[in-house]
Amino acid sequence: MRIATIGTSAITSDFIEEINASDRAVFVGTLSRDLERAKAFTEARGGSRPFTELEDLAASNEVDAVYLGSPNALHASQALACIAGGKHVIAEKPLGANEREARAVFDAAEKAGVVVLEAMRPLHDPAFVAVRDLMRNLGRIRRADLHFGKYSSRYDEILAGKHTNIFDCAMATGSLMDIGVYTVEPLIELFGAPESVLAAPVLLDEETRGLTHGPLDGSGVIIARYADFVATLHFSKITNDRLPSQIESETATLTFDGISVPTWARVEHRGTAVRAAAKQVHVEEGARTEDLELPQVPNTMVYELSDFCDAVDAVQAGSDPLDAPAGPFGNVRHYRDVTLASLALMDEARRQMGVSFPADALASDAPEAGER
Amino acid sequence: MRIATIGTSAITSDFIEEINASDRAVFVGTLSRDLERAKAFTEARGGSRPFTELEDLAASNEVDAVYLGSPNALHASQALACIAGGKHVIAEKPLGANEREARAVFDAAEKAGVVVLEAMRPLHDPAFVAVRDLMRNLGRIRRADLHFGKYSSRYDEILAGKHTNIFDCAMATGSLMDIGVYTVEPLIELFGAPESVLAAPVLLDEETRGLTHGPLDGSGVIIARYADFVATLHFSKITNDRLPSQIESETATLTFDGISVPTWARVEHRGTAVRAAAKQVHVEEGARTEDLELPQVPNTMVYELSDFCDAVDAVQAGSDPLDAPAGPFGNVRHYRDVTLASLALMDEARRQMGVSFPADALASDAPEAGER
Repeated sequence: MRIATIGTSAITSDFIEEINASDRAVFVGTLSRDLERAKAFTEARGGSRPFTELEDLAASNEVDAVYLGSPNALHASQALACIAGGKHVIAEKPLGANEREARAVFDAAEKAGVVVLEAMRPLHDPAFVAVRDLMRNLGRIRRADLHFGKYSSRYDEILAGKHTNIFDCAMATGSLMDIGVYTVEPLIELFGAPESVLAAPVLLDEETRGLTHGPLDGSGVIIARYADFVATLHFSKITNDRLPSQIESETATLTFDGISVPTWARVEHRGTAVRAAAKQVHVEEGARTEDLELPQVPNTMVYELSDFCDAVDAVQAGSDPLDAPAGPFGNVRHYRDVTLASLALMDEARRQMGVSFPADALASDAPEAGER
Repeated sequence: MRIATIGTSAITSDFIEEINASDRAVFVGTLSRDLERAKAFTEARGGSRPFTELEDLAASNEVDAVYLGSPNALHASQALACIAGGKHVIAEKPLGANEREARAVFDAAEKAGVVVLEAMRPLHDPAFVAVRDLMRNLGRIRRADLHFGKYSSRYDEILAGKHTNIFDCAMATGSLMDIGVYTVEPLIELFGAPESVLAAPVLLDEETRGLTHGPLDGSGVIIARYADFVATLHFSKITNDRLPSQIESETATLTFDGISVPTWARVEHRGTAVRAAAKQVHVEEGARTEDLELPQVPNTMVYELSDFCDAVDAVQAGSDPLDAPAGPFGNVRHYRDVTLASLALMDEARRQMGVSFPADALASDAPEAGER
């Protein structure tokens, strides 16, 4: 499969590294509005064909599929252009600025008969599958806390009064979209869509609004409510969250590190609870602990690339795109549904947090489907 | 100071152990409706005077102060009776079933010129003061997560179809009141009252309603919103929460264990953030970590007893009770205000969680103050 990329970010570079390491994919070249930049980036990574126009890339018969590593706000329009040119698409998370954008992309892909997949690393990683398998043996789950918080060097830029795409409503970014999405999608994969959510942001200071084009979250918390348990999502780009993620059942507690790339997991089976008092904070009889190292590779993008190749191969062999296998959790349809449910959750969370993007205004201005 | 106790619980026993170890207090005896029980419990702990009637205890001139280790729902009425008899009162947390009850107790104490203090262990513990001191040096705080979750042997009783005071709306108990309060009061002490809260419970199964006398929380989560940061409180009596508590600033992350009795703390100062990509989950230059062991004693009730003695001594030496020193964080007035703000927060959280107590119905049925 011949893959072109859009974007010259570090993450695009990491993805191309995996294309070059794979015997199933070939790197064709990258798109950049600046020809010299497109050439240099493409050549340095063994590509042959730099692009400066999206239309040329979408129409190129040298390209079978496109990886989108561009800013969030551009994913949907770029995906639509590539789909219109018959290309399969793998897009960085989140696939669109909101659920409406993502739905438009998936609808177009369905009509065009191509594969669209979101590059959500944990949902393609055997280490996360191992966590899911551990979770299935916990018994009745009552609480979950998923954590991803990492101080971003781009926040230094904001504090220095400089614009950055990573904190900009016009780019559909901020802590929920860039980091929180790594807690939302595993939540949806593990537990399905919640009955309701409660969300609270830590907004960047008002003085930065000129840079961020509106109120924007530097950090935040979401409570996801289910029939008989509750989950909490913690995300941040302005602090370092040092806690592992945790899933608590009535009989055991599962903890695991880095939700985007888990490397270890621990299951603590409780013993028989012994009555506690002021002097005995926690006493149990018969408790036991299991520690597990999870499978690791240097670059976990290898898995999403491989799953994307599987899906495209299946389509080229005659499969309906939605039925094509797309990773350890299911087919393209399943991954699409997780992406859509995740964006729907994030749309509602942003509404409660008071964080809106230009793409949201379009949605509310647009006529209802029946009125078109 | 001659102290009697109400209740024959394990925690009451632990408190009497500290009375007996102190050269500032003497254990007089305990109240139990069952005379044999009152006698046996009192004698086994070196007391001389068992009580079976609250009125006798309140009127006794052998008693200067009373410790309340009874179920939450009884704290306010018992405290009011003791105050009416001129006794100083130290009551287990929470001091009342709701803010209205606690306010009535504090108002009566103010009129009677006696000390009322809530036995909230961390707010009297040097280990928690050390955590507060570490927090003050973190710089700009953006997020906090406070955790207390411990599987209760009493939940085994509920699952076996037996009634227990610890899961009973009529007793004003449940996970927030019994365990969550240990996260709420430190929150208020460290950060003050939040601007608003969002709360979600994990309710016990509907089949248990006959035992619990209404919807009751086995676990839950509260988000507390402040002007420029957000805190999350996690509490549970039906699971084991294995995470430490955490306070995140823009430059450092403080973690510490067991909020009711912290024994260690860690401060991780971040270095210069280095741009991350798929291959580099977290890279920093110049980060450093401080680990601290916190001061520990076998029974942390020693501190609240000592602070209570200080307050009563000051009053006996002529101080106004509200101005009397009551612990490392301030005077009786300060501790009163923390208790009231905490109960106000819990009242609102319970309202959102759909958990109500008989004492709440009294409040809404009662005439407005101006109508009396």
